[in-house]
Amino acid sequence: MFAEAHIAADRRLQEFIGRLKALTSIPSVSTDPAHWPDVERAAAWLTDWMRDIGLQNVQTFTRGDYLPLVYGEYLGAGPNAPTVLIYTHYDVQPAAREDGWETDPFVPEIIDGKLYARGAVDSKIHVTAQLSAIACMMEAGSPPVNLKVLLEGEEESGSEHIFAFVAENPALLKADVTVVTDGSMPDPDQPVLVYGLRGLITGELRVKGPRRDLHSGHYGGTVHNPAQVVAEIVAQLHTPDGKVTVPGFYDAVAPLSPDEREALSGIADAVVDEWRKNASAPRPWGEAEYAIHERISARPTLEINGISGGYTGSGFKTVLPSTAFVRFSCRLVPNQNPDTIFAAVKAHILSLVPPTVTAEVVELEEGSPGFVVDRHSAPMQAVRTAYQKAWSAEPLWNRDGGSIPVVTAFQRHLDTTIVLMPFGHKLGGAHSQNEHIMLQSFKRGIHAMLYFYEALTSPDAAGDA
Amino acid sequence: MFAEAHIAADRRLQEFIGRLKALTSIPSVSTDPAHWPDVERAAAWLTDWMRDIGLQNVQTFTRGDYLPLVYGEYLGAGPNAPTVLIYTHYDVQPAAREDGWETDPFVPEIIDGKLYARGAVDSKIHVTAQLSAIACMMEAGSPPVNLKVLLEGEEESGSEHIFAFVAENPALLKADVTVVTDGSMPDPDQPVLVYGLRGLITGELRVKGPRRDLHSGHYGGTVHNPAQVVAEIVAQLHTPDGKVTVPGFYDAVAPLSPDEREALSGIADAVVDEWRKNASAPRPWGEAEYAIHERISARPTLEINGISGGYTGSGFKTVLPSTAFVRFSCRLVPNQNPDTIFAAVKAHILSLVPPTVTAEVVELEEGSPGFVVDRHSAPMQAVRTAYQKAWSAEPLWNRDGGSIPVVTAFQRHLDTTIVLMPFGHKLGGAHSQNEHIMLQSFKRGIHAMLYFYEALTSPDAAGDA
Repeated sequence: MFAEAHIAADRRLQEFIGRLKALTSIPSVSTDPAHWPDVERAAAWLTDWMRDIGLQNVQTFTRGDYLPLVYGEYLGAGPNAPTVLIYTHYDVQPAAREDGWETDPFVPEIIDGKLYARGAVDSKIHVTAQLSAIACMMEAGSPPVNLKVLLEGEEESGSEHIFAFVAENPALLKADVTVVTDGSMPDPDQPVLVYGLRGLITGELRVKGPRRDLHSGHYGGTVHNPAQVVAEIVAQLHTPDGKVTVPGFYDAVAPLSPDEREALSGIADAVVDEWRKNASAPRPWGEAEYAIHERISARPTLEINGISGGYTGSGFKTVLPSTAFVRFSCRLVPNQNPDTIFAAVKAHILSLVPPTVTAEVVELEEGSPGFVVDRHSAPMQAVRTAYQKAWSAEPLWNRDGGSIPVVTAFQRHLDTTIVLMPFGHKLGGAHSQNEHIMLQSFKRGIHAMLYFYEALTSPDAAGDA
Repeated sequence: MFAEAHIAADRRLQEFIGRLKALTSIPSVSTDPAHWPDVERAAAWLTDWMRDIGLQNVQTFTRGDYLPLVYGEYLGAGPNAPTVLIYTHYDVQPAAREDGWETDPFVPEIIDGKLYARGAVDSKIHVTAQLSAIACMMEAGSPPVNLKVLLEGEEESGSEHIFAFVAENPALLKADVTVVTDGSMPDPDQPVLVYGLRGLITGELRVKGPRRDLHSGHYGGTVHNPAQVVAEIVAQLHTPDGKVTVPGFYDAVAPLSPDEREALSGIADAVVDEWRKNASAPRPWGEAEYAIHERISARPTLEINGISGGYTGSGFKTVLPSTAFVRFSCRLVPNQNPDTIFAAVKAHILSLVPPTVTAEVVELEEGSPGFVVDRHSAPMQAVRTAYQKAWSAEPLWNRDGGSIPVVTAFQRHLDTTIVLMPFGHKLGGAHSQNEHIMLQSFKRGIHAMLYFYEALTSPDAAGDA
């Protein structure tokens, strides 16, 4: 069946490119209420296509004022076959030609093998490639895998409702494997297997000294300045070699095995190149015993995201401030419990507060744990096989240092193995001007999904691990 | 002559109170261009009165768009008599009844021996008492002291032009003694002799790390966060016992002599009470070997007036900021050279900058030195005598921890002994609602000036030192 599906993918490529052009023509900008009718139009266009493909139970979920979540499924492979949940989103960031676009952002144009349009890479390439792959399988016969497709319409505007939706619909979304297909690969010809993400906790330390702002002449030298106090506390949160000083902070961190370090080493040079280009600090900083790509991905951090105290507007005021605050976050790696780590950070910070001030530490947002998938698991190996075959290149292993909120929602509420499968590339201008994809990547993405389903349903077809 | 002048002061008190009411009726709000005609009207009213008193060379100085400096002089005492320059200001802060005034701020009202009006204490009590004292002397005969009166119209709006005026007119303003008559005493029945002020230097440390703001997930753990760097530097600027760590910082500081500590001890309890009430931090901080009132007045400081880095608006952003800054100031005491201290602070801060970032330290405003008058000098003893006699109380010695910009201008450009003589009281609501003076303080102020001139011209009349 898969052989026929691949043939169909090649034969129908122009049709699918047409679909991608049609979808990117709809300005489904979720951040702008003026475009919400377009978001709904895009949702209707998607449900039409999904019914056309032969998916069942196709519907949109809208509740109150939220933008439609589009859902459709194929359960024809039966209860003994694996079930795959596909997640991506069809809404886009705003764009206007006068921002510096060389084409109209909502009139897709193909130039030199690239399709230019707002949403091309983020994430309509994924929406269209996923549905195209399913269409090819449906045409070729009875897919041996059950499919559930969940397309979000609010990803660019904060994903406000999908958390509750996932929490309330675990049966609907039940799947053995969940494919989160968004994001990008650094080089369009070099696929990367992202098998881990970092979690996140966020907090704020608030220090209060004198009961109101004081004149630094009349009180300076007798009051422990809160701006100085937060600085003194922040300065104690890292050792000179970049380790976090919070007791117990590293206790649960799974060490990087020699095997994993070896697997990750393939990405090292690319990460350093990227760091030099984009971070471009005078020199790197952090845990010397870990390479840059390891520090970013497999090591937890404590970062100062905001610090404020006293007068920081234009000019100068000789104020001795009453209060000061610092906002911090920790990137977490697997096995670190967000609640445990937050409690440890809070206790450590409070232990550093001098008796000259009062202070509190509050959590700002619900924490999320780190995420990692066993590289040797069948779904991860199926992803690897899919990229190997579709890209004719050995993918590099990597762990991403950021978080993907929807992954946290799936982790928290669904018992499923999550894999990440982006087809776009990093320089494709997501959220920026002249957003585009390589048509070659679109085509490879459709084939990759077919290889993925094949590998997942007939493990013998998987490449050597 | 002085005996007759005191009699005239008592006899004419209602006239002078009427003058004070007339002057406070003019809304000479220098911060509001809509009120600039009122500022000019007040200046004209003052020049009329000064001519009426018999002062000579009465004129206003306005250049370009600046508000009038009112000047008048009496040089009839001849070249061998001492010359006194009187400085205060006639402009006021804005005020409106709806801000919470119980009377109309520009319709002065006398209630229970107090006169309520905007500017009553800051500083029209001083303007009127000074001119009233001169009027009494002129009535009584030939004053044995030469007088120069300089009344500013821009003190509340930044004193933008008086520095240049003082710099350009040293001959006009040449005087043996300069009386800066502004400010207030903590208790209207307990005069305080402020014989010192602290100087000021101001600066900013700017730290730059990565070339742009980064995503803390994608770079966290590999970049020395500038917000953390400024904190780490700030934390190294004081020892745990509150001393400034800048090498050489205390080298020039004149030690407090046992004699001076004894003289200052009279104010200690009042300063601590005031600290508990207004600073009200959980506990004091600073150099333990100095009392609170000594730390505030006679010891130099390094204060953090502003610290900023990363995202500090509402909500939370997982940003790893490209830059961060800290604004600082040092209060200086006599003998510390502002340029030397700034250079030392800058060098010390730069020595603490790690190689992971770049940084610069810039001076924000021209520095000013500390100021102290010899308590045993004739002008200071004349002030003491004046308060002793007019208030029937032994004044307390104090040094103020703040700076008075115009004092710096006089220090820098005039060869004169500067003394401070406030008559208002601290709870008189300067810059606030229901501003008022004690009429008793106004009357005492007029007499105090007569006692001051008398003591200055016949040193034998001075009290025991």
